[in-house]
Amino acid sequence: MIEHFERFPGIGPRTAQRLALFILKQPEKNIKDFSEALLEAHHNVGHCKTCFNLTSEDECNICVNPERNRRIICVVADTRDLLALERAREFKGLYHVIGGLISPMDSVGPELLEIKSLVERVSKSDIDEIILALTPSVEGDTTSLYIGKLLSPFTKVTRIAYGLPMGSELEYVDEITLARALEGRTIV
Amino acid sequence: MIEHFERFPGIGPRTAQRLALFILKQPEKNIKDFSEALLEAHHNVGHCKTCFNLTSEDECNICVNPERNRRIICVVADTRDLLALERAREFKGLYHVIGGLISPMDSVGPELLEIKSLVERVSKSDIDEIILALTPSVEGDTTSLYIGKLLSPFTKVTRIAYGLPMGSELEYVDEITLARALEGRTIV
Repeated sequence: MIEHFERFPGIGPRTAQRLALFILKQPEKNIKDFSEALLEAHHNVGHCKTCFNLTSEDECNICVNPERNRRIICVVADTRDLLALERAREFKGLYHVIGGLISPMDSVGPELLEIKSLVERVSKSDIDEIILALTPSVEGDTTSLYIGKLLSPFTKVTRIAYGLPMGSELEYVDEITLARALEGRTIV
Repeated sequence: MIEHFERFPGIGPRTAQRLALFILKQPEKNIKDFSEALLEAHHNVGHCKTCFNLTSEDECNICVNPERNRRIICVVADTRDLLALERAREFKGLYHVIGGLISPMDSVGPELLEIKSLVERVSKSDIDEIILALTPSVEGDTTSLYIGKLLSPFTKVTRIAYGLPMGSELEYVDEITLARALEGRTIV
């Protein structure tokens, strides 16, 4: 049991031990409920057929929400990034979860990502804007460029701003971020 | 001596003690040279008459450098921010060091900062662009807005981008930064 817990991300040997001892102290009923919940979730949760977000339905709760703006799609690498954007409560459109970033070093080419489905989706519907919300890194930039080239014939493609995070001091920001913040300056 | 060292920023009692013991071990000649260097620097270093950067001359080495673009001025809060931008090697224009940020909470009004001298400087010379490089905070935004209003009649006023720092993960970036990164998105 401890070995199983240790395989989880961010759980070391000591936490694994603590979790295992906690399990041993529980009544058997709780453990059965927990095991069933795990199996049920694993069995039921799949990908939204439209945006590839995680969902237990055919389409996810964002895609079926009539209050979301269906003419803007935000492209994210994975579901965690989608959740981060939802927490920021700024974006009111739909998403497309491509499932990773193009990375030749790790043999991840565009064919392994949900990019073809994105192009199809955009070509089939009336879209005002595609916002690329990918991490500022070599892989993120490569993926943004690749998708940008594919989609700009259909619609406007933008990417989120790279620059100074809120509350940061110029003095402690790395040089590349500062250079990008200067490049990306906007009219006051 | 230890008490004196403790007054320096970032130096606690233990470091102060270590520094003081180091001083005691030095030959007297070294201590005299050190003391003189301190007094000389304190005596000679003043503010550049044009940009208010620190300098031992009348004008600082950036203002007198003929290779800098004299038609772009970057506005920074203090000399440390100027040095950070110089390290990024992206900006090739001149600076104006206003000496702080507007902060009503700390009774710092615009009259305590080098803003009047900036307006005079801009109104007297041919300037293509003013870049505001102030920290992304309430004080930074207030100061940017204030200077923007004063200078936009004369020239184009921009501010550096707020957004995701390089190498950051969307998941770990705070909500306000994410919201600003979305707002400030740019065409790919």
